[in-house]
Amino acid sequence: MSTQEQVTNILHEIMHPEINRSLVELGMIKAIVTQNDTVTVTLALPFKEVPIRDELVNSIRETVAKTDSHLKVVVKLAEMNQQERAFFMAASEGGPKRAQSAKQIDHVVAVMSGKGGVGKSSVSALLAVALQRRGKQVGLLDADITGPSIPKMFGLRKPPPAGESGILPVKTRTGIKVMSINLLLQYEEQAVIWRGPLISSAIKQFWGDVLWGSLNYLIVDLPPGTSDASLTIMQSIPLSGVVLVTSPQDLAGMVVCKAAQMARKMKAPILGLIENMSYLHCPECGERIEVFGSSQAMQTATKMGVPLLGQLPLDPELAHYCDTGTIEVYSIEFFQSIADRIDAAVPTNKKTLFF
Amino acid sequence: MSTQEQVTNILHEIMHPEINRSLVELGMIKAIVTQNDTVTVTLALPFKEVPIRDELVNSIRETVAKTDSHLKVVVKLAEMNQQERAFFMAASEGGPKRAQSAKQIDHVVAVMSGKGGVGKSSVSALLAVALQRRGKQVGLLDADITGPSIPKMFGLRKPPPAGESGILPVKTRTGIKVMSINLLLQYEEQAVIWRGPLISSAIKQFWGDVLWGSLNYLIVDLPPGTSDASLTIMQSIPLSGVVLVTSPQDLAGMVVCKAAQMARKMKAPILGLIENMSYLHCPECGERIEVFGSSQAMQTATKMGVPLLGQLPLDPELAHYCDTGTIEVYSIEFFQSIADRIDAAVPTNKKTLFF
Repeated sequence: MSTQEQVTNILHEIMHPEINRSLVELGMIKAIVTQNDTVTVTLALPFKEVPIRDELVNSIRETVAKTDSHLKVVVKLAEMNQQERAFFMAASEGGPKRAQSAKQIDHVVAVMSGKGGVGKSSVSALLAVALQRRGKQVGLLDADITGPSIPKMFGLRKPPPAGESGILPVKTRTGIKVMSINLLLQYEEQAVIWRGPLISSAIKQFWGDVLWGSLNYLIVDLPPGTSDASLTIMQSIPLSGVVLVTSPQDLAGMVVCKAAQMARKMKAPILGLIENMSYLHCPECGERIEVFGSSQAMQTATKMGVPLLGQLPLDPELAHYCDTGTIEVYSIEFFQSIADRIDAAVPTNKKTLFF
Repeated sequence: MSTQEQVTNILHEIMHPEINRSLVELGMIKAIVTQNDTVTVTLALPFKEVPIRDELVNSIRETVAKTDSHLKVVVKLAEMNQQERAFFMAASEGGPKRAQSAKQIDHVVAVMSGKGGVGKSSVSALLAVALQRRGKQVGLLDADITGPSIPKMFGLRKPPPAGESGILPVKTRTGIKVMSINLLLQYEEQAVIWRGPLISSAIKQFWGDVLWGSLNYLIVDLPPGTSDASLTIMQSIPLSGVVLVTSPQDLAGMVVCKAAQMARKMKAPILGLIENMSYLHCPECGERIEVFGSSQAMQTATKMGVPLLGQLPLDPELAHYCDTGTIEVYSIEFFQSIADRIDAAVPTNKKTLFF
């Protein structure tokens, strides 16, 4: 058997530690080149900064060296292109059920709006912070793959560390566990130009492959719309409930009704409606300004037959805290009662989920 | 009739043997040059090595020779660029049923933001209104399938009438032609719970099956994100350019950079950036309030290397006009100069598209 063949064979034995399929099956071995006493293996990674990179490199080096102790093993790294990544995702989903360590989540609450820019991500973040302050263990899953906002709000930049059997979420200053696509990108402004199936599989991985550990609440920040991301969340994650967010505009009210309908169709219980950006106090004269028109919240909530959980002002300070990654130090007294109502509204029989 | 005209006319008769539309309709005749007794026809192929190449060349030669037996016919070959190929693909998908009455569109301009709720739809609508007031013929394609806002802004509710060979767009009070999924729904709050492929095919139909007629501008209002809808528009519609919309938040700036990257990757020219919701004047004391933090527009535009087209205030009146369907009577003097800049920025060689 040639060295080339030997190396190829032995590479089949290296299993991806998180997915339980071999690197070869996952399309991660891009090339094997043997020249004199040197063999160069090109390892293709789905994202450049995957946390288990070094682990994989070492394991290739050690395994290949076993074939011949005189062999010099060089591991070159490459980043998968979109197609290779799609293949990798598909292959990793197909694999045998993941050997995960237990994770226990009492309640998964999705924050949804239909329309973009009504403050879904700020509400998700504030809800996580408020529940955390009430002594709950909280996780925050950013399901907005093409426009992720959560890491920036909490000032998170480091890639998620690798655990023994999956990816660990990144912890905020106060201990909220966060997972977002932006934590996996090389730079935060990188575009993620994916069609629906890839979006869905990334979200499934955030749910299935992230070692959330023990949580009272996992808050899911959904992207706008009622397409792939929302569908995947509602179809593959057992939700305790959905919190709807709207703004005073009639337009937003119309679109949030679409979101409510979707939640009903997918049998996800609606916990209530929050109206964001309801009004603004002029910092100069104190005048209450209805920036987006007069509130429609009560009518919208009644029409949908759901409780109105609260109305939030438009606060220029909040934008500042979000932009500087310090949302955790923002004073959220006004939000605490909303969080309490949500905490009271989730079904009392905990649906603790074990994986 | 000049030789040039004769040749152009007769070329309309040559059907693509596989697609059943004429080579002219498919955008395959790139140039016709007549000089003395020689006519040179440039045939653009989607890919250099298409198997029916010779067949096409012969059929052009024979057909053109019919106009005048003394004519020397030269067929030059060219390969389509990405945009021409996208157009070809879109045209060929439509198949024979669309051998419709001509539609002629000079410029397609997509309005994009990445992040939701920064006012993409209002900018699209205002741009359409402003161009219309300058005497242009304008259409407005609402590509936001799960959160469509356009019909409400213009107070449109009637379903689009059927034409002889396709759907007719609905006309606004001032004559802007509009197509949106919400015009096709039984009631406007109906949810459209579709995965990506359905979203894409709806958008393709809005482009291919709607009888837009003769337009100077077709404005496309994209949904947030860089997934299916944006991909489909950029791959299958030949865009004259993209207008990016952002808000003063750092967060929005980050996401609009993702959108810009996508446009670049898809070779869609960026016409410029508009910052929306830049500031608000207190109706009581006139204080200028920076609701979403201080403007980042200039930095963002510079970073992306695109012109800053303008900064728009947050105007509570605008929300009112949008909600009451009367955006056309909103005073938009401040927007007129932006529209003029866009009008000046689109490539001067009209890309009039015939179908």
